[in-house]
Amino acid sequence: MKLYDYNGASNPRRVRIFIAEKSINIETIQVDLASGQQFSDEYKKINPYCVVPTLLLDDGTAIGEVPVICRYLEEIYPDHPLIGSTAEERAIISMWERRIELDGYFSVVDATRNSNSNLKGHAVTGPHSYEQIPALAERGKKRTFSFFEDLNSLLEKHSYAACDHFSIADITAVVAIDLAKKRLDITPDSALTHLHRWYKAVSARPSMKA
Amino acid sequence: MKLYDYNGASNPRRVRIFIAEKSINIETIQVDLASGQQFSDEYKKINPYCVVPTLLLDDGTAIGEVPVICRYLEEIYPDHPLIGSTAEERAIISMWERRIELDGYFSVVDATRNSNSNLKGHAVTGPHSYEQIPALAERGKKRTFSFFEDLNSLLEKHSYAACDHFSIADITAVVAIDLAKKRLDITPDSALTHLHRWYKAVSARPSMKA
Repeated sequence: MKLYDYNGASNPRRVRIFIAEKSINIETIQVDLASGQQFSDEYKKINPYCVVPTLLLDDGTAIGEVPVICRYLEEIYPDHPLIGSTAEERAIISMWERRIELDGYFSVVDATRNSNSNLKGHAVTGPHSYEQIPALAERGKKRTFSFFEDLNSLLEKHSYAACDHFSIADITAVVAIDLAKKRLDITPDSALTHLHRWYKAVSARPSMKA
Repeated sequence: MKLYDYNGASNPRRVRIFIAEKSINIETIQVDLASGQQFSDEYKKINPYCVVPTLLLDDGTAIGEVPVICRYLEEIYPDHPLIGSTAEERAIISMWERRIELDGYFSVVDATRNSNSNLKGHAVTGPHSYEQIPALAERGKKRTFSFFEDLNSLLEKHSYAACDHFSIADITAVVAIDLAKKRLDITPDSALTHLHRWYKAVSARPSMKA
């Protein structure tokens, strides 16, 4: 099994943190997104959608999409569960992971892809070319601030993003916050005390260096 | 177990088709989206995100998000599998279901929410208010046409959207196509013969009346 990865990118970081939390070892191969290696014919054979990460199984099966890769790894390596131990727990954690991705992570990505001068003509992930929409970049920023507030409300109810223990939902939330800081210079307001208490605890985990 | 549902909406239709294909029976309760019942205090207690569908378990656990509800039902009712029978198959089917949702279903939703005069101030699903972005409605339409072409290419490789049998990926694809016709008056070009062969077969399944 091999993970096609790029150290500078946030989407593969979600999988790297997941792997580190599960204490498993998977060989990684760097795909240089900065030089456009994801659009090469060689990589298109592995992932025609031209994105990292991709998990390549020994029989040649290629699995794309971060939450799908994580669920597959959770199934074959059930120790240190990060998506829950019962059907109900898996549903609750997956629901919050998805909401955090759609409202938080995707908002940061919208704001970045529709404003960064290096991404002109690449406003949507994938092989098709779309022009940037400045109004969507603005909406993405507004939605990022709403995400911070909604996450703070969640963290008032339980210690971690989805429940009372660390899960994949926390990984997606931390990576979204770190990406907002890195790409948009946006950080959560200091009044969001539950978010800051949680962020301090989770970002100190060794896995977060991944 | 109860499903909060609305007969006129596409997102709960995805779950209704899934339930019909699995030959299970779940009590449904209508939430009248046309009159804004999803924003009532009563419904907010069940789903603070103000969307249908929600699956309410007998112990009061509320599960939102279509793919999450479907995965939960697949776990507790494993007969007639629609998300695969092995970890690898579940990964492949989930990957394509997600791509069809992100590229197809969400593109149609973007185009609709950012242009329909009834949805002013509701351009993003959920409790927060966002104004419509006409350029995003245009991009959503363009992406819908790309989705039709990409789906046709997938259906040249295998009989169904994700593999050689019917799965949740086909449900998401059919509902996206039907929504594009209903809301945007957009239909796949007649040259996309693989798509039309598949659509004729899957849309004739009794479950599609759901």
